[in-house]
Amino acid sequence: MGQVAWKALFLSLFDYKTEKYVIAKNKKVGVLYRVVQLSILAYLVGWVFVVKKGYQDTDTSLQSSVITKLKGVAFTNTSELGERLWDVADYVIPPQGENVFFVMTNLIVTPNQRQATCPESISIPNALCYKDEDCLAGKAVVAGNGVKTGRCVKDGDSIRGTCEILAWCPVEKRSKPKKPLLGSAENFTVYIKNSIHFPKFKFSKMNVLATSNESYLKSCYYSKEHPYCPIFTLGNIVQWAGSDFQEMALEGGVIGIQIEWNCDLDKAPSECNPHYSFSRLDNKFAEKSVSSGYNFRFAKYYRDAEGVDYRTLIKAYGIRFDVMVNGKAGKFNIIPTIINVGSGLALMGAGAFFCDLVLLYLIKKSNFYRGKKYEEPRGTETWGFSCTEGDSLCGGVGRPGWEPLAHVAS
Amino acid sequence: MGQVAWKALFLSLFDYKTEKYVIAKNKKVGVLYRVVQLSILAYLVGWVFVVKKGYQDTDTSLQSSVITKLKGVAFTNTSELGERLWDVADYVIPPQGENVFFVMTNLIVTPNQRQATCPESISIPNALCYKDEDCLAGKAVVAGNGVKTGRCVKDGDSIRGTCEILAWCPVEKRSKPKKPLLGSAENFTVYIKNSIHFPKFKFSKMNVLATSNESYLKSCYYSKEHPYCPIFTLGNIVQWAGSDFQEMALEGGVIGIQIEWNCDLDKAPSECNPHYSFSRLDNKFAEKSVSSGYNFRFAKYYRDAEGVDYRTLIKAYGIRFDVMVNGKAGKFNIIPTIINVGSGLALMGAGAFFCDLVLLYLIKKSNFYRGKKYEEPRGTETWGFSCTEGDSLCGGVGRPGWEPLAHVAS
Amino acid sequence: MGQVAWKALFLSLFDYKTEKYVIAKNKKVGVLYRVVQLSILAYLVGWVFVVKKGYQDTDTSLQSSVITKLKGVAFTNTSELGERLWDVADYVIPPQGENVFFVMTNLIVTPNQRQATCPESISIPNALCYKDEDCLAGKAVVAGNGVKTGRCVKDGDSIRGTCEILAWCPVEKRSKPKKPLLGSAENFTVYIKNSIHFPKFKFSKMNVLATSNESYLKSCYYSKEHPYCPIFTLGNIVQWAGSDFQEMALEGGVIGIQIEWNCDLDKAPSECNPHYSFSRLDNKFAEKSVSSGYNFRFAKYYRDAEGVDYRTLIKAYGIRFDVMVNGKAGKFNIIPTIINVGSGLALMGAGAFFCDLVLLYLIKKSNFYRGKKYEEPRGTETWGFSCTEGDSLCGGVGRPGWEPLAHVAS
Repeated sequence: MGQVAWKALFLSLFDYKTEKYVIAKNKKVGVLYRVVQLSILAYLVGWVFVVKKGYQDTDTSLQSSVITKLKGVAFTNTSELGERLWDVADYVIPPQGENVFFVMTNLIVTPNQRQATCPESISIPNALCYKDEDCLAGKAVVAGNGVKTGRCVKDGDSIRGTCEILAWCPVEKRSKPKKPLLGSAENFTVYIKNSIHFPKFKFSKMNVLATSNESYLKSCYYSKEHPYCPIFTLGNIVQWAGSDFQEMALEGGVIGIQIEWNCDLDKAPSECNPHYSFSRLDNKFAEKSVSSGYNFRFAKYYRDAEGVDYRTLIKAYGIRFDVMVNGKAGKFNIIPTIINVGSGLALMGAGAFFCDLVLLYLIKKSNFYRGKKYEEPRGTETWGFSCTEGDSLCGGVGRPGWEPLAHVAS
Repeated sequence: MGQVAWKALFLSLFDYKTEKYVIAKNKKVGVLYRVVQLSILAYLVGWVFVVKKGYQDTDTSLQSSVITKLKGVAFTNTSELGERLWDVADYVIPPQGENVFFVMTNLIVTPNQRQATCPESISIPNALCYKDEDCLAGKAVVAGNGVKTGRCVKDGDSIRGTCEILAWCPVEKRSKPKKPLLGSAENFTVYIKNSIHFPKFKFSKMNVLATSNESYLKSCYYSKEHPYCPIFTLGNIVQWAGSDFQEMALEGGVIGIQIEWNCDLDKAPSECNPHYSFSRLDNKFAEKSVSSGYNFRFAKYYRDAEGVDYRTLIKAYGIRFDVMVNGKAGKFNIIPTIINVGSGLALMGAGAFFCDLVLLYLIKKSNFYRGKKYEEPRGTETWGFSCTEGDSLCGGVGRPGWEPLAHVAS
Repeated sequence: MGQVAWKALFLSLFDYKTEKYVIAKNKKVGVLYRVVQLSILAYLVGWVFVVKKGYQDTDTSLQSSVITKLKGVAFTNTSELGERLWDVADYVIPPQGENVFFVMTNLIVTPNQRQATCPESISIPNALCYKDEDCLAGKAVVAGNGVKTGRCVKDGDSIRGTCEILAWCPVEKRSKPKKPLLGSAENFTVYIKNSIHFPKFKFSKMNVLATSNESYLKSCYYSKEHPYCPIFTLGNIVQWAGSDFQEMALEGGVIGIQIEWNCDLDKAPSECNPHYSFSRLDNKFAEKSVSSGYNFRFAKYYRDAEGVDYRTLIKAYGIRFDVMVNGKAGKFNIIPTIINVGSGLALMGAGAFFCDLVLLYLIKKSNFYRGKKYEEPRGTETWGFSCTEGDSLCGGVGRPGWEPLAHVAS
């Protein structure tokens, strides 16, 4: 028979084996199961496919380049600077036009600083002194501007003075500005050019209308009507971020400009548009705390005829703009589709598991169903095993512990 | 019996319950199911394990540091600058050698600008005027260089002139350069040092041959033969990015240098190598549009003997290089392995579900199989439930609606 | 009957169908299965839920802003610079206080460079010459400072000299500094202000105590006791990164400062705290290789009375600090919870599959169980199919190849 057996064995490989089900005419559980099935289906279709676009292969490794360019001038007339005009090269730091740029809106200038000795600013606790012994020579002033020379300088006949220091003299006066010097920066415009590329799908796009019409980009401003004219006034950006420009200009701050590219490449490329959002990145809530605002110091260095260095120290307050680009593109792909359908269906198993618990342990007739669900085979190791020795065994009881009862019953 | 029952109940916990299957000797569905099984298996092995390395735990939080250093000098001889030699400190902005650096390849110099009044450039529409009334005093020129003084300056007897402005004078002439001044930047070399660290696996590596042989890094260039000599000529980088250097040098642009570390830590560390790729980040396709190119303005500030500031304004065209590092490391881990195998097998359930649909609703004998698959229990609430009252019920009919027929049949 | 049939058919939709199981009283497999179940359960609860917080919806798209500010002065007294005091504006590059900043700790100054001709440094191989012919006029020195003029300059009567070049003269002397000039930078302090925002959960926080108490931030230093005082001394940062400050100050290097926000928003906001970690980003292991250290060149440009440019070239060695912020927030959400439970249960299917293999092919009685598990229907296309024609078929044999035997048996 071997020959036959092997052939049959091979054929039997192509018999389809399907689970045997027991019908429980219990409408409660039945309805429950249908509900579970429907909700899983709803989740699968609604959430996985419609919302999360589970049928798509996605690319989040965005290649992006941001080029920014500011335009605008401001005229100021102050005591220490006189009449002065500020243009881009003056107030944009750094000048490169990268994705992070700072616009100076307020400043404290300390001109003609030279390496010399002078009394430390009185606003620094560590520099206060009554006699020279309080100023240990050669020791740096904590959070100060220089190194103590050992002398205690008092103006007039006041008993308290400040240590003399070797430093860039004169030292900066800590005079918080009352109103922003470059308040008119509100009207400056910034042009944000952003090109993106999704390598996986070889898809490129930029946020500027690819026009050869010079005048368009010279005249337009960003708006719902002109989504592809990425030219903003600083005032608008700050306002959209929910802050007040003049207030920020005084103390300084950080604004985030998010550009979001969320592209469904199953649709036309023209459907893939940038979305701009603006937010204030430095702490809003602690507005009045010491840690609010944004400023830094830098110096311009000069050399006089004798070849001696001197500098102008500038404490710059202003607004830093961080342009952040992120995005993802999706395109139909068979593999994620199958996976999602499959695992969705697999979830049904979990649903059935749950309903079984109800059926087998919670409802009144559960013992009965348990008996039907779990069939207990009996018999000797014969190939052709038969039911004849007691039909009760075709069905059988889930809990062998109650076997005796079963026999009584049959 | 309680005692016995509980013991039995406990024992029964360790009875293994396996689903009962009905064999459908239908070769069509059988083959279909085997095909489904095989494809799931193929997917699991081929895609999940071989391609996606599903048996590995991965770390994508790469710690990376990039240090760049340029070398090279260029000699120029122009009317306004005379003979001039450009070295690294002149043409690299910013100088720090971070992962983003700009190489100046072309420039418009406007020397000796001072705060004064002068006519605005005629290229700015807003500044054109016919009479003084056209120049509202104190108003900034839109997209211009200064603030109007109220006078309209006409050269000679032309009827049209430009408003006089208070600005850094003289204003820049909008003379697009014909050929790149620093075209020889093509031969400059850049050394890109990149060290990475995968914290999860405590794995560190860098893209430079860890040699103490001074001369090697002085002489070598990057190539397939020297993958660990990260020294490139700018010309090659631009060429590999698919652009023409001289053309880019004229208008400016942005080049992305991706360094990809894709490490399989189950293999030897020497298998974990960097892969370089180069791409042009600013828009290629809109080459001729107004939005192409990359340039910015910056100034060098001087002070004359009288202590008056003046500056040299430089409009710099050039190429910005963004070095982007990303990578991921994988190492065998039991948990993802189990998960992937498990969910792969779970997918089989979905396959069976699909084949069941075919078996039960699409093929000719489907009613018959439905009858076999769905067994309908009948009987009173007795523990030992027996089949005897009508064998037909051991099998039974999937759709109770046809019960009557069934009785007729038996 | 149609009417009845349809009604019944509809009702039957709400019959619950549960798989039929065969009880295998095989303790080995039973125990095995329970073990599998328990381990899956353990994985689900322990790993997925407790460790990975699988019941949470997470947001990893962190909006972060970093503002850094250094404090401290250093006094130096060297031959070429004389007595000099260094403050923030002198040693921090760039000055903006962004998340990447460089502190100069050592430098080589080459003052008063002018465009002129001078002999190239002898340390450059390409510039060595014996006669003028060795110096091809107009050719740039490879890795050098200028363009050859065609003359070979020899000092005294030595037979070997270096080519004369047109360059910024005099050229820099390659004198590696012996000890860091600004070694006292170890005591400089840096204040790192970091505000974060999780857009999905509208949750904002910063790493600074929101206090209006001026003095606190003036006096405190970061420590376990003061986690919300982000003020560090450079010395500590370098030490925590496992390096020696003085050694780094000499050669330069890169330090990474990671700030990790790992927030469980099901807990109180006060539970969401930043965690700082410090690591050296440039290669530790190749300490002595030529590729170690970090330095760059920059120049300060001056103009003399005749309007001729000259500059001071500075080769700056120092430590670059990269502040990297990353984080993720999690909040309970029903969908991921269901998904994780579901797929966990689905895994049980895989476990059963595995145990079936054991039961059906590995154990002694496997043939018997195979027979019970796979029921083979037989019969004509009648609605009410009956078992009577050979009870053996209610059970039946898994492998039809053995059918004949089966008949013999019954």
